[in-house]
Amino acid sequence: MPVGTQATVKGLTPEQVADAGATIILGNTYHLTLRPGDDVIAEQGGLHKFMNWHKPILTDSGGFQVYSLAKIRRIDDHSVSFRSHIDGSLLELTPEKAVEIQENLGSDIAMCLDECPPHESTSAVMQTAVDRTILWARRCQVAHRRTDQALFAIVQGGTDVGLRKKCTDGLVPLDFPGYALGGFSVGETASQMVGALEPTAALLPADKPRYLMGVGRPDDLLAGIAAGIDMFDCVLPTRNGRNASAFTSSGPLRLRNTCHKRDSNPLQSDCLCYTCRNYSRSYLHHLFAANEMLGPTFLSLHNVAFYCRLMADARKAIAEGRFSEFHSVSLARWGTSLYDDGHS
Amino acid sequence: MPVGTQATVKGLTPEQVADAGATIILGNTYHLTLRPGDDVIAEQGGLHKFMNWHKPILTDSGGFQVYSLAKIRRIDDHSVSFRSHIDGSLLELTPEKAVEIQENLGSDIAMCLDECPPHESTSAVMQTAVDRTILWARRCQVAHRRTDQALFAIVQGGTDVGLRKKCTDGLVPLDFPGYALGGFSVGETASQMVGALEPTAALLPADKPRYLMGVGRPDDLLAGIAAGIDMFDCVLPTRNGRNASAFTSSGPLRLRNTCHKRDSNPLQSDCLCYTCRNYSRSYLHHLFAANEMLGPTFLSLHNVAFYCRLMADARKAIAEGRFSEFHSVSLARWGTSLYDDGHS
Repeated sequence: MPVGTQATVKGLTPEQVADAGATIILGNTYHLTLRPGDDVIAEQGGLHKFMNWHKPILTDSGGFQVYSLAKIRRIDDHSVSFRSHIDGSLLELTPEKAVEIQENLGSDIAMCLDECPPHESTSAVMQTAVDRTILWARRCQVAHRRTDQALFAIVQGGTDVGLRKKCTDGLVPLDFPGYALGGFSVGETASQMVGALEPTAALLPADKPRYLMGVGRPDDLLAGIAAGIDMFDCVLPTRNGRNASAFTSSGPLRLRNTCHKRDSNPLQSDCLCYTCRNYSRSYLHHLFAANEMLGPTFLSLHNVAFYCRLMADARKAIAEGRFSEFHSVSLARWGTSLYDDGHS
Repeated sequence: MPVGTQATVKGLTPEQVADAGATIILGNTYHLTLRPGDDVIAEQGGLHKFMNWHKPILTDSGGFQVYSLAKIRRIDDHSVSFRSHIDGSLLELTPEKAVEIQENLGSDIAMCLDECPPHESTSAVMQTAVDRTILWARRCQVAHRRTDQALFAIVQGGTDVGLRKKCTDGLVPLDFPGYALGGFSVGETASQMVGALEPTAALLPADKPRYLMGVGRPDDLLAGIAAGIDMFDCVLPTRNGRNASAFTSSGPLRLRNTCHKRDSNPLQSDCLCYTCRNYSRSYLHHLFAANEMLGPTFLSLHNVAFYCRLMADARKAIAEGRFSEFHSVSLARWGTSLYDDGHS
């Protein structure tokens, strides 16, 4: 899922997002409730109509942004209070409120409010967060009214597999239509993530979607798929695109580099995206050198297409029983050391 | 002609520009020769291929930007020397060089190098500029080689109709395929411009395109048409669009104003542009409030469509013998005092 934080996938029209191969996008509850307000979006007919995206939308619960962007004032079993990163106003999010906001937005998949502590938290803090995440998932389920919207639960517990198991033990009996793994890609190492991911994913029902939130680089996605994950969201395709960095099947290209100035090749010769069909590296380099808006747009489009095709290729490889080979060939071709942008 | 200064109409894909109704765009010789270089563009197959715009392109001569953006070092009958506004390098433009650059770019219409003095220049300076403009037009014509490119001459002379006549007397016998009026919209009042425009336009051949350079607001365009002008270019549709200002048939809208926050109407109810077909003022207001790239893109698109439709409506009114009525009805509907953004 490309990320459409503020009711727009940055720099791309809905038609361009769809043309790049995306069939579902993510919207951010925290940002949208602050601006323009979920009441405004509801009045305008819901998020799909507001932003002119008529395919599925998943909204997060707002929790992750409260913990990462806002200044937390207080968190207890009742709610989390925080100050808006936009105007400093004091706000409160309860599980019921998180559901209400997402029902106002009218997304197709809503997420339960969870607690996502920092990676370096003590075991006691992690334990409390798991208990609260289970408690809040129950309350979200009770509060949830819309029958045209699926409500997914989120598994917390950091890199502690025991805590992850405790969380799934609490959530799976509640029979949610899908489960997400939160609290990854928050500062732990790649091997810590993979180490906790696989055993946790295995505890989730095989017949329901498993969604790894906020991950990640192309190699992280393949590692996630190997661990049994079905869904991902990440800002990297669009964020890197805005920063002149293109994902390609032979590793990243930095389009600001002057080596591209006279290069008439597309970003990737076998890529069929709009950018690669119509523009040379030379032109893309020029757009970034001249600080033109189309540079970020065209690279974001290509990167979203790269990610969507990677997922399509992975699905095909799984169906043909050769995912493991596909995984290792992909890593070898990219050169994993090149992906040094860090997690998003 | 929407303006594509740096080989891109800012924020719009070529498909969006065409979808808005534009059939020809302008490229800026000065900007393109500095960056990426006309040699680079020639190597990449010319400006059409470079920027993926396969309809006509007109390039200016670079003169106007040399006089307005660069620091002039010296100007005489041989050439103009100036420092690049990008890196301060010392450069020289001759009539022959201006033609060579535009032949490298491969535009469909090229412009002769002219001298465009500041509006407040003395009569002697204006006189010299007219003499030099005629001299340089002759040299451009001699230097011009491409048979697939039309070379237009530019009439200078400020607001002095006598000087304008002197310039057309020098240029018309050279039998250029089209003539432009330069040196308007450079600080003179609207009535000064209109006063000099009509008698000058009347001196130009009726069977060849007359092009008023760098003008202007919607009411300026209609005044130009009334004076016999056929072609215009202006940055206003895209520049105002980036600044959250939309042209509509009932006057401008400032999309940052909070009055639009809950307004589910399109920018203009009878506008068939992509923006008006798909987005509310509420959404457009949100995009600007959240500083999202699509705000400038969607307003630029609408504004280009507004200008293109205005020209189409004017052509229709002329064909039906009711341009004068169309002109006065349009002015009354817009409320001319609202267009206070100044000339571009």
